[in-house]
Order: sequence, then C-alpha cells, then structure tokens
Amino acid sequence: MRTVQSELNRAAKEIFGFECNITGCSRTDSGVHALVYFAAITPQNESDIKDGWCHIPPEKLPLAMNAHLPDDIAILEARLVPFDFHPRYAVQSKTYIYKISDGPIFDPFLRRRAAMYPRKLSDSDVKRMDSAAKLFCGEHDFRAFMSQGSSVQSTVRTVYSAEVARTADGLVTFKVSANGFLYNMVRIMAGTLIDVARKSREPSLISEALESGDRAKCGATAPPWGLYLYDVRY
Amino acid sequence: MRTVQSELNRAAKEIFGFECNITGCSRTDSGVHALVYFAAITPQNESDIKDGWCHIPPEKLPLAMNAHLPDDIAILEARLVPFDFHPRYAVQSKTYIYKISDGPIFDPFLRRRAAMYPRKLSDSDVKRMDSAAKLFCGEHDFRAFMSQGSSVQSTVRTVYSAEVARTADGLVTFKVSANGFLYNMVRIMAGTLIDVARKSREPSLISEALESGDRAKCGATAPPWGLYLYDVRY
Repeated sequence: MRTVQSELNRAAKEIFGFECNITGCSRTDSGVHALVYFAAITPQNESDIKDGWCHIPPEKLPLAMNAHLPDDIAILEARLVPFDFHPRYAVQSKTYIYKISDGPIFDPFLRRRAAMYPRKLSDSDVKRMDSAAKLFCGEHDFRAFMSQGSSVQSTVRTVYSAEVARTADGLVTFKVSANGFLYNMVRIMAGTLIDVARKSREPSLISEALESGDRAKCGATAPPWGLYLYDVRY
Repeated sequence: MRTVQSELNRAAKEIFGFECNITGCSRTDSGVHALVYFAAITPQNESDIKDGWCHIPPEKLPLAMNAHLPDDIAILEARLVPFDFHPRYAVQSKTYIYKISDGPIFDPFLRRRAAMYPRKLSDSDVKRMDSAAKLFCGEHDFRAFMSQGSSVQSTVRTVYSAEVARTADGLVTFKVSANGFLYNMVRIMAGTLIDVARKSREPSLISEALESGDRAKCGATAPPWGLYLYDVRY
C-alpha cells in the first residue's frame, strides 16, 4: 500500500543517496488528513551519519523533496534540529479539527474531506455539541475514548481546549487541543458529539463516559475523512 | 467509463422505472468540474410520456436521486419545465471560472482542483493577466480559441465579462461569462493568460489571435483540473 511514510522514504533516498529513517510526529490512519505534520529525517545506517550528511541547505530541501513526491504530499518547510530531537516525544500540544458537513444535500467537493451528517444542524444543535465538547477539557482518563490496537502506559491526557462551531467554510467543526491523544480519540469524541447532536444522548454522557471509562457509553468512531491534524507545538 | 451522464441515467431509471434521456446544458470533459449544471430528464420511449409520468414531486426529487447517486454527484434542485425546454439551446449566458494555484509549493488539497503554476504570481502579474483577459470582451470570432473535435456552425461568440483576480481562496482565478463557448475555449483562454503571466507573450497577443484566427498564436490548452462551470442563466 502507498503510504505517506513510504513516499517520504523513497524521496529522501533519491535525494540523499542512502536509506533514511523518517520519524513522524503522530500516527495517521488511512483516510485522515494533515494540514501540518512534522517528521525527522536521519540516515538509517550509522556509517552515513557524519557532519554535513545533509548536503542540501534546509531552505532548498522542500523544493527538492517536492520534486520527488507525488502531488498529494507537500513539504512546506525544513530546518536543522539536534540529532536527538524526536518529533513525537517532544510534542507539547497537538490540535485536531473534525469537519462535519450537514445535509440534506452533500457537496460532492467534500467527498472524503468531511464526515456527512444527513440533516441540517441548527444553531442550537451546534451549541449543544459545543457544551458537550467543553466537558472534555482538563486532565482526565480518556480510556473510554480509545480504540483497541495500541499499547500506551497511561490513558490520562490533558485537553487544553475543545469547541464546536459553524466555521467560515459552512461546516460544523470540532476543534480540540491536548498534550496528546489516544488511538482514535478524536474520532470517538466526534462520534459522541454527533450522538449528542442527534439528541440520542445528553451532553452529560461525556462526563459519565470519562468517569466510567466505558467505551460503550461513547458514540461510534466517526469516519476518518473528517479528521485533520491542524497544529503541533513543541 | 463512469460518466456523470451514465450515473444520472442509471439513477433516473431506478427511480422512474423506465429508461430516461438526460439532456445536459453543456459538454464537460474528463477532469473538469461543475459547481452548477442543468439537465432535463425525459422518458426515452414515447409510450412512457404521459401526464403525470414524473410521479415524484419536484421538491422530493433531489433527495430521491441523491440516494441513488454516488457521493461525487449531487442534485441540488429539481423543477418542472415545458416538455420542449432544452437546457443547452435555451442558455442565455454561461460563466466559467479557471483556478490557478501558484507555487512554489503546491497545496495537496488542490490536487486535481486547480491548475498548478510553478512560481509565485505577483500583483502586477495578475494585473497583466486581467488586462489581457479584458481583450476577450465583446463579440469576436473565437476560432483561434477552439480545439478540433466539434462541429459548430459559427465560431462567433459574445463575451460579456472577463477578469483575473486573486480570490478569497488565495488562488488566481479567471472568470469569464459569454453567450456560449467553443470546445476547450476557456482552457485555451486560460493557457494563453498563463503565457502572458510568464511574460513569454504580451497581452496584445489576445487581439492578434482574435484577428488572425490562428490557434498557434494562443497558449496551450490548460489542464482540465482548473475549470469549473460556475453559473448558467436562462
């Protein structure tokens, strides 16, 4: 399967002339988007690691890499960092947005770029989602908002901000910042907020899910198309 | 090959229960987009044409059709029209936009949704393109701006307005309205304006091309990704 990582590996090898390791800032599932993403490139073999191994000036690396990358991946900027910089462990906060296009008619140009909700969401629906989202804020054990398939030492995370609003693009957007996210955490949060919107659940279910740690109390994992990595801070 | 027309035909047959003719308002090449599009649906066999053949109220037809259409086609509205209404012949004016994303770094989210131009277009480049575009306005023989492959009685068209500007989406957008367009006319116009932007040609070449009718004076046919049918007036 073609992956962002495999394309970056190929392009880096073509440019540097040796195999490279690409270390990314987060796991990204198939179908998910990234407006920003940070990755470190290092030579794979120790024998290739020496002063000046990166013979291309950082300001020229984006154009060089982009010339070797397909047009659905773009390098925006490159800079030199200490050799031990780890794009994942050094993260201070990450922000995701989740875009929902409400019906009844779906814009074909949003295909695979937003989750589709079949009926119009009213202003009060959006406010209800926003009130529910606020309950994510603070330090909580988010194990109810995690899919199986990853091993983590702790399921406690701190959410710095969470809001739902109708944004300038006409979509209903859930935006959430935290010091870290569990596997599928934002998609399960979004699926739960959608349940709140359709009034099958009360906003308070968020608190109940956090307290009980029960995945069954949350909504479905919302589709990957709506999710965008939006900002990463170091 | 999957086409918009074939998908509409299939959906209409599933809804009405008999074969239908779909008559569109214009020819659309592969890769080209439409923000609006008008098409008439009529029963294919005379025996199916009778009062009340359209048993679905027009206001309910969009949702019914959309349920049978893939998510890259959407019916926005339906209304009853006289049986002899022809969506192409009845057109008073059509407006197209052509979107250009200028580099040096291309936004992957614009892949297949805009033409890519490799360097930054300055404000004066855009003004130069706009001045050139203005020369399209009025009644002219546009045969220099036509690809082979269609037979038309006359190559004279009236352009009502033509402009190039940097739009709110950050792209350089060529917008042109006319009483009709020849085959590939907007894409050749756009290709010629791109030649004007890169300063390989003077804006006056537009007038020269119109007077001579010489296709060779114009730029290349710009790629289909940039072209959007934007408005149709009856």
